[in-house]
Amino acid sequence: MKDFDPWAVKEISDYGKLMSDFGMESFEKYREKYDSFRYIRRGIIFGHRDFQRIVDAKGHRKPFALMTGLMPSGDFHMGHKMVADEIIWFQEMGADIFVCAADMESYLMRDIPFEEARKIALEEYLTNYIALGLSPKNLHFWFQSDYINEYYRLRDMSSKRVTFNEMQAIYGELTPAKIISVLTQVADILHPQLERFGGPKPVVVPVGADQDPHIRLTRDIASRMNAEREDGRADMPCIPPSATYHKFMSGLTGGKMSSSDPKSHIALSEDPTRAKKKIMSAKTGGCSTVEEQKKVGGEPEKCMIYELYLYHLIDDDLELSKIYHECKSGKLLCGEDKTHCAQLMEKFLVEHQKKMPKARETAERILEKK
Amino acid sequence: MKDFDPWAVKEISDYGKLMSDFGMESFEKYREKYDSFRYIRRGIIFGHRDFQRIVDAKGHRKPFALMTGLMPSGDFHMGHKMVADEIIWFQEMGADIFVCAADMESYLMRDIPFEEARKIALEEYLTNYIALGLSPKNLHFWFQSDYINEYYRLRDMSSKRVTFNEMQAIYGELTPAKIISVLTQVADILHPQLERFGGPKPVVVPVGADQDPHIRLTRDIASRMNAEREDGRADMPCIPPSATYHKFMSGLTGGKMSSSDPKSHIALSEDPTRAKKKIMSAKTGGCSTVEEQKKVGGEPEKCMIYELYLYHLIDDDLELSKIYHECKSGKLLCGEDKTHCAQLMEKFLVEHQKKMPKARETAERILEKK
Repeated sequence: MKDFDPWAVKEISDYGKLMSDFGMESFEKYREKYDSFRYIRRGIIFGHRDFQRIVDAKGHRKPFALMTGLMPSGDFHMGHKMVADEIIWFQEMGADIFVCAADMESYLMRDIPFEEARKIALEEYLTNYIALGLSPKNLHFWFQSDYINEYYRLRDMSSKRVTFNEMQAIYGELTPAKIISVLTQVADILHPQLERFGGPKPVVVPVGADQDPHIRLTRDIASRMNAEREDGRADMPCIPPSATYHKFMSGLTGGKMSSSDPKSHIALSEDPTRAKKKIMSAKTGGCSTVEEQKKVGGEPEKCMIYELYLYHLIDDDLELSKIYHECKSGKLLCGEDKTHCAQLMEKFLVEHQKKMPKARETAERILEKK
Repeated sequence: MKDFDPWAVKEISDYGKLMSDFGMESFEKYREKYDSFRYIRRGIIFGHRDFQRIVDAKGHRKPFALMTGLMPSGDFHMGHKMVADEIIWFQEMGADIFVCAADMESYLMRDIPFEEARKIALEEYLTNYIALGLSPKNLHFWFQSDYINEYYRLRDMSSKRVTFNEMQAIYGELTPAKIISVLTQVADILHPQLERFGGPKPVVVPVGADQDPHIRLTRDIASRMNAEREDGRADMPCIPPSATYHKFMSGLTGGKMSSSDPKSHIALSEDPTRAKKKIMSAKTGGCSTVEEQKKVGGEPEKCMIYELYLYHLIDDDLELSKIYHECKSGKLLCGEDKTHCAQLMEKFLVEHQKKMPKARETAERILEKK
């Protein structure tokens, strides 16, 4: 049996097309340098564009920023926690943090009223970010529907730097609302480089691999915004944004993890007892009978329990490795493993939820300051 | 010889298709009521949509507003003066005045840098409006690129109320920049009805007949914005805007009057001597020889000099009628008539330009207050 890399549940080849066809680069060369961060060490962050700019900025003590967006709909779950962990890690690295609540997008594309989006952004997202460790210091948080005018100007200006056909190639059939959503996202990513925020600087956007088309479009528009006009100035001097790409967590039942399907995820506000139950009925990589599993072993690569360990619940590689090999060898059975996972999850949720009330207050203060 | 209506240079039939096919209504029923206003009395304002709302608001002493946009490019000329006169007339009627400098549109569609647009909007448009009699009281003046966030939100929301095909039917081939321009114009027209400005109210937009497609689109979007959501509220309660439609002045040389063609227009900042020269070489409705004209008479309906009288230089109907009939009968010849017109124009420009420095100061104060 090939000694599978226990830190990489999904083979990188799943994502290989992005690298071979679209110029995304492997994160491998940074893995050792930043191996204190679980997602990097375990190859969950597997790709990047222009990450060297961020490394250099940090190295030369120059300002750099992280930009991320959140779609205020549904529960804040363990998949969102992964992004939150990344934001917090970059903040600890020294990045200024720009977080956008995409309430215009949720209104335009999902019919979510602004008041509801605002409530979700506050109660679910911002509060959880803070409880997970995001500091309000150097944090810029805004709603797409309610912000500064340079931001809207930048968005409108970017409309001149993209053709209809380019957009259609990425987004398929276009509507006026979809065009507005796309351009707003471009402005979200570029505006940390506005003069008001200190001008051009490296900005990293941590995303799932499926978000790469947005990144590519924004990088193209940035280059065009940065091009000199006849009078020798750029319309907006800026640096094409960098990006890191992570793999996705699967849903508990094996499919996609989705905010709108409670069976597929565990929310960070979830009742710990209910969370434990979800774990006990999650999909594993086990065999159909105990006897068979004892004989041939389980498949952690296909196990949702193992994914929870890998992404969130077990930070110690040795401990994780032990589980991996005991599962493979048939020594560790699914029932016992699930119970273990459920206990870890319960512990995490209880501790996290204790931090929520204070985090909520902090989150409210951040929104009031706006 | 049919006694032609001397107040209507172009037959209403030129515009008949708009009325028969697109539901524009004739302004005829309001002509007597508002005959103190030259453009109405003379049928230059010939059509409308929902003007009764404005009449009723005024009658019941309810708030109503006028909205107009300006494209900050080129000279402010006698064609723009017509719109300015309309704005001022509505202000005297009691309308709150909303004037939008379409600097985003001029940037997106005509490549005019924002700084240049700002300069033109101040020095040409706003200053001339003030010098012509616009009061800074109840005047809201804004730049599309630099305004309040409810305005941008409204624009984005309207993107959801129009299909791609509807836009294409009006504007032909679409680009992202054109879509932004169109939606910005919709927000320009609707936003006087934002809560911040007192909520829904009748708003009149005085435009040339060629602008009717924008008006129709905005009225459609307004109806859809006003439709109730599931929760019984409207996304933005508002009243579809009213409009008045005026005929166009021709250019001095007979074609279109254009900001970018100095031969076609007289700017309000023009050197009066140069303006006189332009008038002396303007196209008239005269014959090729004096002898012929004395015999068959001139055609004021085709005469640019007569248009200048009709729109701007002669407010007294009797005086204008005399010129009309003397021209028709061959008594008044083009040379004499041009000299007369040149004198009136010189007088107007000299007096107007005296008011400019003070008007400029007022205009600057208005922009500073923003």
